[in-house]
Formats: sequence, structure tokens, C-alpha cells
Amino acid sequence: MRTSIATVCLSGGLVEKLHAIAEAGFDGVEIMDSDLVPAAESPEEIRALCARLGLTIDLFQPFRDFEGVDEVTLADNLRRARAKFEIMDRLGAKMILLCSNVATATIADHEVAAEQLGQLADLASEYGISIAYEALAWGRYVSDYRDAWKIVQLADRPNLGVCLDSFHVLSRGHDPREIEAIDAEKLFFLQLADAPHMQMDILSWSRHHRLFPGEGDFDLISFVSHMIRAGYRGPLSLEVFNDTFRQTDVRRTAKHALRSLRWLYDRACAANSWESKIDAPQPPRAIDFVELTGEDLGEIEQALHQLGFVFGGRHRSKPVRLWQAGEANVILNEQPRTQGTRLGSLGLLVDDAEAAKRRAVAIGAPAAFRRTYEGEYDLPGVLATEGIEVFWNARTAEESWRDEFEGGSTPGTESMRGVIDHINIAYPWQEFDEAVLFHTSTLALGAEPASELPGPRGLVRSQVMRTDDGVVRIAMNLAPPTAPLLPRHIAVRVDDAISVARRAKERGLPFLPIPDNYYDDLEARFGLDAELLAELQELDLFYDRDEQGSFLHFYTPVVDQVFLEVVQRIDGYDGYGAANAPVRLTAQRTFESETA
Amino acid sequence: MRTSIATVCLSGGLVEKLHAIAEAGFDGVEIMDSDLVPAAESPEEIRALCARLGLTIDLFQPFRDFEGVDEVTLADNLRRARAKFEIMDRLGAKMILLCSNVATATIADHEVAAEQLGQLADLASEYGISIAYEALAWGRYVSDYRDAWKIVQLADRPNLGVCLDSFHVLSRGHDPREIEAIDAEKLFFLQLADAPHMQMDILSWSRHHRLFPGEGDFDLISFVSHMIRAGYRGPLSLEVFNDTFRQTDVRRTAKHALRSLRWLYDRACAANSWESKIDAPQPPRAIDFVELTGEDLGEIEQALHQLGFVFGGRHRSKPVRLWQAGEANVILNEQPRTQGTRLGSLGLLVDDAEAAKRRAVAIGAPAAFRRTYEGEYDLPGVLATEGIEVFWNARTAEESWRDEFEGGSTPGTESMRGVIDHINIAYPWQEFDEAVLFHTSTLALGAEPASELPGPRGLVRSQVMRTDDGVVRIAMNLAPPTAPLLPRHIAVRVDDAISVARRAKERGLPFLPIPDNYYDDLEARFGLDAELLAELQELDLFYDRDEQGSFLHFYTPVVDQVFLEVVQRIDGYDGYGAANAPVRLTAQRTFESETA
Repeated sequence: MRTSIATVCLSGGLVEKLHAIAEAGFDGVEIMDSDLVPAAESPEEIRALCARLGLTIDLFQPFRDFEGVDEVTLADNLRRARAKFEIMDRLGAKMILLCSNVATATIADHEVAAEQLGQLADLASEYGISIAYEALAWGRYVSDYRDAWKIVQLADRPNLGVCLDSFHVLSRGHDPREIEAIDAEKLFFLQLADAPHMQMDILSWSRHHRLFPGEGDFDLISFVSHMIRAGYRGPLSLEVFNDTFRQTDVRRTAKHALRSLRWLYDRACAANSWESKIDAPQPPRAIDFVELTGEDLGEIEQALHQLGFVFGGRHRSKPVRLWQAGEANVILNEQPRTQGTRLGSLGLLVDDAEAAKRRAVAIGAPAAFRRTYEGEYDLPGVLATEGIEVFWNARTAEESWRDEFEGGSTPGTESMRGVIDHINIAYPWQEFDEAVLFHTSTLALGAEPASELPGPRGLVRSQVMRTDDGVVRIAMNLAPPTAPLLPRHIAVRVDDAISVARRAKERGLPFLPIPDNYYDDLEARFGLDAELLAELQELDLFYDRDEQGSFLHFYTPVVDQVFLEVVQRIDGYDGYGAANAPVRLTAQRTFESETA
Repeated sequence: MRTSIATVCLSGGLVEKLHAIAEAGFDGVEIMDSDLVPAAESPEEIRALCARLGLTIDLFQPFRDFEGVDEVTLADNLRRARAKFEIMDRLGAKMILLCSNVATATIADHEVAAEQLGQLADLASEYGISIAYEALAWGRYVSDYRDAWKIVQLADRPNLGVCLDSFHVLSRGHDPREIEAIDAEKLFFLQLADAPHMQMDILSWSRHHRLFPGEGDFDLISFVSHMIRAGYRGPLSLEVFNDTFRQTDVRRTAKHALRSLRWLYDRACAANSWESKIDAPQPPRAIDFVELTGEDLGEIEQALHQLGFVFGGRHRSKPVRLWQAGEANVILNEQPRTQGTRLGSLGLLVDDAEAAKRRAVAIGAPAAFRRTYEGEYDLPGVLATEGIEVFWNARTAEESWRDEFEGGSTPGTESMRGVIDHINIAYPWQEFDEAVLFHTSTLALGAEPASELPGPRGLVRSQVMRTDDGVVRIAMNLAPPTAPLLPRHIAVRVDDAISVARRAKERGLPFLPIPDNYYDDLEARFGLDAELLAELQELDLFYDRDEQGSFLHFYTPVVDQVFLEVVQRIDGYDGYGAANAPVRLTAQRTFESETA
């Protein structure tokens, strides 16, 4: 399947965009007139540049508001069209996108629209140009792709067909199954955009909030399947208007865009049992380990000990230490001259680790490299988002990287038994959507509905990516562009958070101090019994409740932008204590400013 | 009239907010529970702090979803209420805001709601607390203030009344005139928020896009007038949920908020012929001058000369020079050790300059100070937004600051004759809304509808503030938070832009180079005759057309973040060539990178 992208998806000038599109690996490009007009380069130069870069010019969008007009307007529209066909001739573009009239149409009659489009098609044929007619969701008289198809049939010209755009079809809730009723040779073009479900006017939704496939709520897999089953053989092309992508680095966005198409086509193949060149997803069965990297991890190590983690040994060839609490493995990797402490890598258990890596690389993730020595376990992995690496492991009892750690302690009755419940990663604003796609396409996680939490420096967007069974959960946080990145954290789930908290306090772990007002509010909201409430307050524990059950959790203070959380899920509680986040964010801010 | 503000309008922690609110000059505060719960300070401490700062606690918002529920839920709701009344007792808050039930109501019956609210009122009376019941725009069964008033009448308790919120009334399009039918003693509270007209779900609109009065599209002057005519004597209180204000400096936002209330009350007084302590607005009759400030303004001076401005003389006591073109006065103020070139001040002609300044200061603008010497003209002025000062002048023929400039040239036939058409100011994201209010409240300008223009670094929001007659126009631009500030410019209107451009080219002025593609597009769009098109292209001129007439304009390159534009309005064209902005922004970016 060929891939293409509209220049309007990217930031910068036209030449920069074309270079970025070619470098990412696209086959072709849709050029928007609004990118060509401001360019200093002539149409001939752009044509030659595309040829050198190996990009076909799949579509050109030069004007709007053609059909359904009075005779005087039609004459001027044909004059406008001819002028643009001359430009296309110089550009070497052979297909024009014509959107349904949103402004000047006065005649609500398919016959008239067809007759006028017929005239346009005849004019276009003089230049060897085809016309792809698209029903815009807010077209004045034509806003449904089925009407566009009727008009194309009425006009009956060989160089007139339809363009389908997933946004215009799915935003209106039109049934995409009828795409399969369109003649294959009349399916001229396919534009793809995802979007979150939103309640707002369609024009603003379309202009500002489109997303690349896999990042929103539209069922694009079905949409593409209908097109291909109907016989469409043109490119899969992206047309995504988005306020963020207009500002972000053009080369990065182009790569990200292509990944979304590779993922989408692979999923469509899987849904239809068509052959795909990409290995099947490997849903993670568990979190194998979390690695923290920093110059000096002594404070983290002390906190792990105070919580009840047990020292699992030193790596035999690397400056790396293992701490364990039941199934929860935390690896501390001390590297000289690193800034702050960060999440270095994440290990996932899957059925076929090599296949997981092959899939990730095929979709477009860079392979990760770690030096391993003779006899050491070599985990396949890729560079994920935010500088974190992901490694896959198909661990069996006989074969594990754990054997490379030596000199560990034996867990005692005092030791904590736990499992990594979730990790929490903060993203800068321009990488959030890309990270959603990474987690779905490469890690085979699904997205929970996003939420917004008020923090003292603005709203924080929160989005959890997880397996269906909840065994692997990654919480993504996005602070406002003007606020500093939020700290990251690792949450360990235990069976008895109260005992863990009590022991940690005894061992001197500093807890994030929770205000008394919080416990007054807990009492008012939930009517907790006095004994439990007193215990929560004594231990600085947070409490939450959902329809299933309840939740206990607490936090260590932030060390170098990283902290730890201990959670206990009671009776199937499935959330993350979101209602407590404002209290936690305020407490962290107070604690930081008091200790800084 | 007393003034108040909800803590949720501001960023930071509760104590910071209270200090900022007091410092700005508010009389009271609405405390949100979501601000109290995360605070380390006890209710008693907050009460004492408010007392010391001279702030009354006018309202408290501790819980939601009370009425219209089954008996079991009602019992728990009364338990929740009692716990919060205990907190209010400690806080010293005497009025609670109760929003209509959005979540748990199952009984759509005013009688039931009234009976349950009656029980709540009786419980509240034990604590000396009053209840202000508010119809939320998205309340499940009660979403209209007239229904809330009916329920309050049915319940018939002395400590139960209504709270009116302008957003909830006006967003639903409910007629605010019926406020005057409510008994004065039952109008317990008034919350004010403005908002732009938007088509989206009301909840998102309310949570993210509210604005302070004077910054949006709601008619708050009428709204407040209805309340006061109905006999309301409580505070005017702001409740503005806005993503920007949640992030901006708390002290700055609090001052800005109070200015909006002062402006609003003054306008309500004017609309009702009530006495106001604030002088009447002084609509500007013309732009008197524009001053540029920088360390070395030689390049700007050369460009002014090349355009045809005439040297108007040196100031007799300051390092300041005047350049003139007919009515357009540009003052160049060279100050050592200033960074870059910037718009230093703007002079406006009004009927009463001292009254204009008194009004601005009364609303909250800081007075501007310029040292003047014996016998020099002392213009009253204030510090406007973005570091620009505004000075007013009631110039008569006998009396003008121009006499202080000596040694100027006499205009010749070569001189340009012009007038300042508009100035264009770029704002950082956090100051844009505040600037809208400054221009309406202090400069008596009105807002044209805002627009968005695609630039190579993201969408640029553009908003023109102007007098009705168009004699004074200030175009405000807002680039995305991640992009650098756009340059500012001064646009001079002339009768013959082609002659001015031709002379300037002859004198060696570098023009912003416009790509040929632009002229191909002009031809296609407008079918201009070949001679005019060739002349535009030769001279690097932009062209636009609206329903009235046409527009010619061109730009000098950017010097130190400032540039000049020359415009010609033909047959009543009223725009600013917005369609050309993407070409201009791209050309400026190209020119900058080539010459940098």
C-alpha cells in the first residue's frame, strides 16, 4: 500500500516539509495551495524537488466552492479552475481535490451540481487532470459521501470520481459500509484522520483537533477495510489539521505520521485476514522490571529499603543493582554525568520477544542497543518515547536476566511482597499524542478515557494505557506547556498498604505530608469509621472509592524528579485515586519548596 | 458595590491566592472546597488570615448533587452537609453555594426538590448558614434560573435563596430580564463570568473558556443592571474557569480580575444613568503619534526617509526625533542600553485628556511618568499592556507638543502624505485577554470578531480593537505559546501606495520579497488585469478585495522586531489583508533566516 501525506499536517515551509516527508519514508504527498503560494520556489522547482526526493505528487488542493452556483459565478469558477490547472500542469500534479461547496452554492440540485462538475471535468481533461470530489461535513448542499457519489454518477465523466475522508464521514456519523457500493474505479482518493470524540461544531473540531490514526476515537481500521474491500488501490494519505502538529518539529512529526499509517494498515490486514509484512502484536503479560537511571541513586535505594524491598544483587558486569519486592523488580543503573534521575527502561514479559521487537521496528521505532557480554542475556528492545527504552522478555524458569545479579539478600518476613501496579510518565505537550500511538501500536496497550485534573499550576491531562486485564498499566500525564514537566513515578501494589506504611515510617521514610483538611473532607464524603480515618491520618495515607471497591495509597517525596507510590486495590477498585491528585500535587509543591 | 472573586479563578495555593486577592483590592472571596482541602492551613487559620487581610468570606462551595434524590441518598446527603457545615463554622463562612443536581437526581419534581432543600435549609439554620441555590446550565432537572426560583419559593425558608451566575443563564440563552421578577431579599448571590461565543458542549465551554467581564461576547452590562434593578445588594463576584488564568501569575491575574469588575460596574451605571465614581470614557478621535524606542533607530529612520516621511525636528531637551508624513507622526526615542526596538508609546487625541487618565487609573491602570521640563507639554498617560505607555492629548491649534521639536524640514512634493492606519502589537499568550479588556475599558475601543491565520510556526490569533469609525485601530496578534513573539508594526495609510512603493524602491528601501506564486494565485482568484498584476509584482505589493473595495499594501523588512507597512484602502475596503498574512509571515521568516 502506498503512503502519502498532506503538507498541511506539518509545520514550516514547503521545501522543509517535502524533505521531512521524504526522509520519513512516505511515497507521495498532497500539496495544499496554501503551502505553494507563500513558497519562493516555482512550481517547476517543486516538481523537480519531489522527483529527486522520490515523492509523487498525489493530489493538489487549489480552490474551493465550485458547484451548485449561478451561471455568472460558474463562468468565473471555470476561469479560476483553468488558471489553477495551468499551475498543476507546471507542477506535474494529475489529480485535484474538489471539496463540496460551502459558501457560494445557491442551487440544491444534484443534477445541476453534476452538470457543472461535468463542465469542470471536461476542462480538466484538456490538461490530463482527474477530479476527486469530496463531501465536506459542513458542505452547504452536499455533506454526505453518498450524495457526492450520486453526483459523480450523474456527471458520468471518466476523469471524475470521489475522494473519501474519514473525518468527514465519521464525524457526521455516516455509515462507512456503503463505501463498498461505490465502483472501484471511481474511488479516486482516500484521506485519513482520526479525532477524539468531542461535542463542538464540526468545523472547529476538524480544523484544530484531528489526530493521526490510532490517537483518537474513530474506527479507522473498519474505514480502511471498507475502502480496500471496495477495490481502492490508491495511497493511504493523511490529512490532519492539528494545532500541535503545526508547531512541532517537522521531521519528527513526519516520522510519527508514517508510523500511524503503518500501524493502521497492519491492523486492517489483521482484521481482514490479509497478509501483513508486520509481525503480530505481542500483548504484555506482565511488567518484568523498571529501571531508574541517575548519577547517584542512594536516596531511591534508601526509600526502597524503607518500604521493604530486598536487595537482589549487583550485576556481574555493569554498575547496576537490583531491588525486589515479590514480583516487583526495580533496577538501579548508576551512570556518571547523567542529569537528574529518570526512568531509563521498562521490561515487559511477552510470548515472543523477538517478534515484539521486529514489529516495533517495522512500525518505525528505533532499535535500542545495550552492550552485553558473553553469556549475558540480550533483551530485544526499542527506543520508546521520552528517552525511555522498552525491552521484551519471554522469560522461562531456566532462563532469566536475574541470574546475572549476584550477592543479593534473601527475603525475610519483613520484606514487602508486591508487583508493579503502574508506572507514571510525564510528557511534554508536543509528544503526548505520539506517545499514545506508540503505546497502542508497539506495546499493544489500549487507551482508557482521558481525564483532566486541576493542579496548582494548571490542568493536568491524564491518560492511562493498559492491557484489558489491567496487569500492565502506564499512566501518561501532560502538564500545561508553560509548566515544568511533572515528576515520574513507579507505583507498587501490595496486599496491605497500612502495614507497609507503618513499617516504612518506623524505618524513617519521609512521607508526603497530607493536610488535615483532606481527612475532614474524606469523612464528609465517605462517612468512614473513626478508627480507619484515624489510621489513614496517622500514616498520611490517601483513600478513594469507586463502584467496585476502595483504594489505599501513599507517596514518597520526590527525589530528583522521581518518586514511588504504594497502592492497595480492595474489592476490584480499578482507578488511580484521581480525586486525590490535586491534594498530592499541592503537597508535592509545598514539600519541594520547603526542602529546596 | 462590593467586589469578590472565587479562588478557583487563580493559580497557586490557597494562601497565595488570598494574599493576591487582598493586594489587588477585592473586598471579599468565594472559597472553593477544592482549594481548602489541599491546603495545609486549618479552617481557623484561613479564617484568621482573611480577617487580617480584610477579606470577607462571602461564599463557600463544599458539595454538590443534593436534591431530587431518593430517601437513602437524601439521608447521606444531609450527613455530608452537616460535616461541611461544621467546617464552615470553623471557617466563619455564612453562605453556601448549592448547585442544582447534575448526577444523582432521579426525581424530576419541583415539589420534591423544594421539600429536600427545605430540610437542608433547616439544618443550615442550626449553624446560622444561608443557602444560595443555583441552576447549573447542565443540571439534570433544574437548568434554568426561573426553575431554581420556583423551587426556592416552594421551599419558603428564610435562609434559602437563589444564586445567579451569568454564564449559566446566558450560555443557555435564557432571558435575564425575568431576574427582575425575583424578590430582592431572595437574590442571595451574583457570580459573573464572560465567555466568547462558541459552539461546543456547555460543560467544556464553562470549564475552560470563561473570561473576565469585558473580554468575551456576553452582555454582562445588562445582566448586572437587571440584578441591581431587582434590588440585589450583595457583592459582584467573579467565577471564571479558564485554562490560561490557572497558569498565570496569581497577583497579576487578581489585579486584572478586579479591573474587569470596576469596568463592568461603571458601564452598568452609565447604562442606567446611575452615578459612577469613574469619569466617562473618552473615545479617541485620532492617533496623535506612535513612539519607537531603541538604542539605535538609524535603520528605521532610513526606512522612514525612503518611504517619504519628512524629518520633523529634534526635541529640545530629550534624545528624541520626530518624523512626519501628513497626519502620521512617528517619534524615535533613542535610549542607551535598551534591548531591541519596541513600541514605546502611543498618543491618542481625545476631548478631555485628564479625564481619560483619571478613568484609566480608577479602573486600575498604573499612571505613566515622563520627566518634563519647564514650558514643556505634559501629556497625561498610563502604562498600558506589553510595556507600552498610552498618552492622551486634547490638542488645539495653539497648543501642541510638536512645538518642542526644532530644526525640522519642510514637506516637499516628494513627501508622503499619510495617517496612521493601525498599529499591530504581538502579545504573549498569557496577556492577550487582559489586553482586550484594557483596550475596551481604558481606550474605549470595541472588538472586531477574532480570526485565526495559519503561519509557518502555528496558528496566529488576530483581534482588531477599533473605534466605530475606524479612525483608531489596534490589531492584536497572538502566536502559539511555543513560538517566539511576532514582530510589531506600524501601518501608514496613503492615497497612492503604488507611487509610494515606487519612490521607496528608487530610494533603495529593501522590500519584503513576495514569491511569484502569490501573483499567479492573485490572478486565479481575482482575474486582475495584466497591467495591474505586473505592477503589483514589480513592486512586491500585496492585494486584497472585500465586498466594498480593494486594498494595496506592502511591508518593510523587520528591523529588531519592528517593521513598517504602507496601506491604501480603495472604495471603503475595511479589512487588513488577512488572506495575505501567511505569505507575509513566510516571507518574513525566509528573509530573516537569509539575512540573519
